[in-house]
Amino acid sequence: MADSWGDLERRVSDLHALEGAIAVLSWDRETCMPPKGARARIAQLSALQAAVHEKLVSPALGEALAMCETERDPERAAAVRELSRERSRAIAVPERLVRALAEAQGASLTAWRDARERSDFGAFAPHVERLLALRREMAACWLPLLPRAAGEPEPEPYDALLEGYEPGMRVARLAPILERIAAWLAPLVARVAAAPPPDDGFLRGRFDADAQWDLTMELLAMVGFDLDAGRQDRSVHPFSQGIDAGDVRLTTRIFEELPLSSLYGTLHEAGHGLYEQGLPAEVAGGVLAAAPSMGLHESQSRLWENLVGRSLPFWEALLPRMARRFPERLAGVTPQRMYAAVNRVERSMIRVEADEVTYNLHVVLRFGLERALLRGDLAVKDLPGAWSDRMEALLGARPRDDAEGVLQDIHWAWGELGYFPTYTLGNCYAATLFAAIRRARPGLDDELRRGELGGILGWLREHVHRHGRRFGAEELVRRATGTGLDDGDLRAYLEGKYGALYGLG
Amino acid sequence: MADSWGDLERRVSDLHALEGAIAVLSWDRETCMPPKGARARIAQLSALQAAVHEKLVSPALGEALAMCETERDPERAAAVRELSRERSRAIAVPERLVRALAEAQGASLTAWRDARERSDFGAFAPHVERLLALRREMAACWLPLLPRAAGEPEPEPYDALLEGYEPGMRVARLAPILERIAAWLAPLVARVAAAPPPDDGFLRGRFDADAQWDLTMELLAMVGFDLDAGRQDRSVHPFSQGIDAGDVRLTTRIFEELPLSSLYGTLHEAGHGLYEQGLPAEVAGGVLAAAPSMGLHESQSRLWENLVGRSLPFWEALLPRMARRFPERLAGVTPQRMYAAVNRVERSMIRVEADEVTYNLHVVLRFGLERALLRGDLAVKDLPGAWSDRMEALLGARPRDDAEGVLQDIHWAWGELGYFPTYTLGNCYAATLFAAIRRARPGLDDELRRGELGGILGWLREHVHRHGRRFGAEELVRRATGTGLDDGDLRAYLEGKYGALYGLG
Repeated sequence: MADSWGDLERRVSDLHALEGAIAVLSWDRETCMPPKGARARIAQLSALQAAVHEKLVSPALGEALAMCETERDPERAAAVRELSRERSRAIAVPERLVRALAEAQGASLTAWRDARERSDFGAFAPHVERLLALRREMAACWLPLLPRAAGEPEPEPYDALLEGYEPGMRVARLAPILERIAAWLAPLVARVAAAPPPDDGFLRGRFDADAQWDLTMELLAMVGFDLDAGRQDRSVHPFSQGIDAGDVRLTTRIFEELPLSSLYGTLHEAGHGLYEQGLPAEVAGGVLAAAPSMGLHESQSRLWENLVGRSLPFWEALLPRMARRFPERLAGVTPQRMYAAVNRVERSMIRVEADEVTYNLHVVLRFGLERALLRGDLAVKDLPGAWSDRMEALLGARPRDDAEGVLQDIHWAWGELGYFPTYTLGNCYAATLFAAIRRARPGLDDELRRGELGGILGWLREHVHRHGRRFGAEELVRRATGTGLDDGDLRAYLEGKYGALYGLG
Repeated sequence: MADSWGDLERRVSDLHALEGAIAVLSWDRETCMPPKGARARIAQLSALQAAVHEKLVSPALGEALAMCETERDPERAAAVRELSRERSRAIAVPERLVRALAEAQGASLTAWRDARERSDFGAFAPHVERLLALRREMAACWLPLLPRAAGEPEPEPYDALLEGYEPGMRVARLAPILERIAAWLAPLVARVAAAPPPDDGFLRGRFDADAQWDLTMELLAMVGFDLDAGRQDRSVHPFSQGIDAGDVRLTTRIFEELPLSSLYGTLHEAGHGLYEQGLPAEVAGGVLAAAPSMGLHESQSRLWENLVGRSLPFWEALLPRMARRFPERLAGVTPQRMYAAVNRVERSMIRVEADEVTYNLHVVLRFGLERALLRGDLAVKDLPGAWSDRMEALLGARPRDDAEGVLQDIHWAWGELGYFPTYTLGNCYAATLFAAIRRARPGLDDELRRGELGGILGWLREHVHRHGRRFGAEELVRRATGTGLDDGDLRAYLEGKYGALYGLG
């Protein structure tokens, strides 16, 4: 047994090392690579991806996994389970399809950028058709692999894609949750919209870029992000990239007229990064050093960005620090005024600019459209109209044009169908985890007021990070909080917070 | 034929792509990687190196090469020749030896840093013994591969190592050249040492780091380094890293008390970088996009650093630009005074701080000792004594201790035996190439005075860079200049320049 495991571990460590190399090259592409390096970078990344794929589908790895099937150590057994799942999905898709998708993605991204610029969905539609067809083919390859419990409804193509982002989640479970969220969000949004908006005039004007950068670095220190095991840089789109628990890289972007952008961008990416720094790289050959799902990963960024970062006690700690850097802008602003300003609710047409109340309605919209596309209930040419109608039903307003509507997200341009729901699952998990932290730490608000965030990080390390993907996302959250996936904590949080903020009875 | 070549090209492009990935990870390690990322980086680099090695020695590549043996296109034929050479050398060394060397290198580097700090060669000696033994074993693997012409003397182990850095070069050819150089350098050094040194007092004092950085960026623009196909960063030790002709990365280091360090560091690395940017990435599957030898690569850095950068007409262009950034330091300094100051000759015990006159004596010293070690004529324990004796004979002074003597270079700590001579070969080639440029461009000094360096770069692009490793180094230089490897141009340059500078009759 020991030798079988050793053999598996050696194979896996090479696989991980190559994945780490991919992560370095991907980060470098967005931060350091000169423009003329792009062509070679495509070749480098595709050679590495081919090498990873080759190792993953190799019969030798299959044999090594088979030898460890009866592994009793629970962490090793989980590692065998996760690797086998990854390997089966990789084997199920023919090489031809993988290559066709990669080619279609490349062409589609360029077309999408052009189409968005000219706000012309028609020019982009053929690419969506092509990617949709390829994703349907892939879904057909993966459908037979989905584990089925007795009594469960027949899985649909959407399930096969969802499984890649949120293992174990099914449309039959997800759709009712999203419908329920939309049902209690609609009246909340309507009542908030009828109330007078908070004053955020003091956030207009110029906030020096260097001072913003210094504030984001101070934020990273506050939340406990280890700068000996990571770094922050500037990039066009903020992102986080885990290379290893000892090497986690964040980026942020700075607009001098939008001081909250760098601040919340950094907090969001730091949430992802703290998770990556806490993953169990030393356990079971490092196989478990990954999130069990995208939703759980997102819960970590949302928890720090929203539950911590948009709370009143946290602003009591942060405002003096921020005001020291922008004295002429923030003189006389109270934590309560800042708290109201950073939680201003607006019917934004753009998802990435949406507040935490309306955000989930954007996800509901996309989920419904994606599912209809995959089932064949909606034709690609009818997408813009369906988008506008549904947006009006959900948010009470229609986008002015395609750029503000159906063309806004990169996901479909990349053929990423089934991903959006993980954002709302992340919001649910974040609310549930934060409620548990609050129960476990009765003095939490005082900690926040003092800017002491180590207690929150310690709890997350202990109950979330160190497990990696040993358990599924829902099982992990249930073990940590007593509650599985549920929108109850999110509802209590949003209704409580915004009811008070907007003086709703 | 076309299909055979296509098959080879596909295999080679993957190999190159993985080598490019290694280059990115190596650069990142020295510039961006956080300290705790080091452990994972070792695993990433060794997995990539294993993947490259596996592809290089694979029977499939051997078959693809065999199918192209009769390739008539001269560039493709050269590519087949170079790949076959690389492959034979890779196959000749058993895996066990490669791994043993990598392990010994790791341990040795740490021991060398400690030993140098304490100036204690005794603590480092066992590592030299070990690395020497491994290199001897490798040399024995490679000796049978050396092409032999009729009448040539029996090759020795040193030849097998030298071939890895300077293909085609043999000790029987190299030793007399180095002896000759030492013979004409000795009297030049003695006469210069007897003359009064130039005044360089105006280079003492603080030169602001940001202004130095800006000057190095201006220098890069002057020499024509394409910043859309590369970048410059700061690092502890300056280096250049070619990832692709479209992605070449330089580093420099800045000391506020040593303004020439960043300036000449940048010019030196830019010389390497301009070469890399000019390599034929589009030709013969990119196989030829490499230097034919380390000596020729070094000739490019030396040419820009010394032949251009330490010339009087160049300083007529550079001094006003530099003085604009440091007006209080350089007011009243003339180009002639600066020219004298940057060419100050000193009997430095440290190679990397040596001027261009004494530099080659350092190389002569190391070549003699390395050769004696490999032949078994010198015991490792006797190295420090032999070093001091030989240094006194060559430079007229002895190092104070091991740190200033035998422990100063990283090369032996890395087991790199046979590399040093390429520095002097680079100096010879640089002088020969520059003499040819001067013949081809009668107005060269006026171009330099105006800061117009495009003519030099254009000549190098045409006669050196675009050929990559299509020809061997000496053949390439002969085609470009009419002269092969010879110390005549170097001698004329150094004796002429320093004779005038130091007023030697």
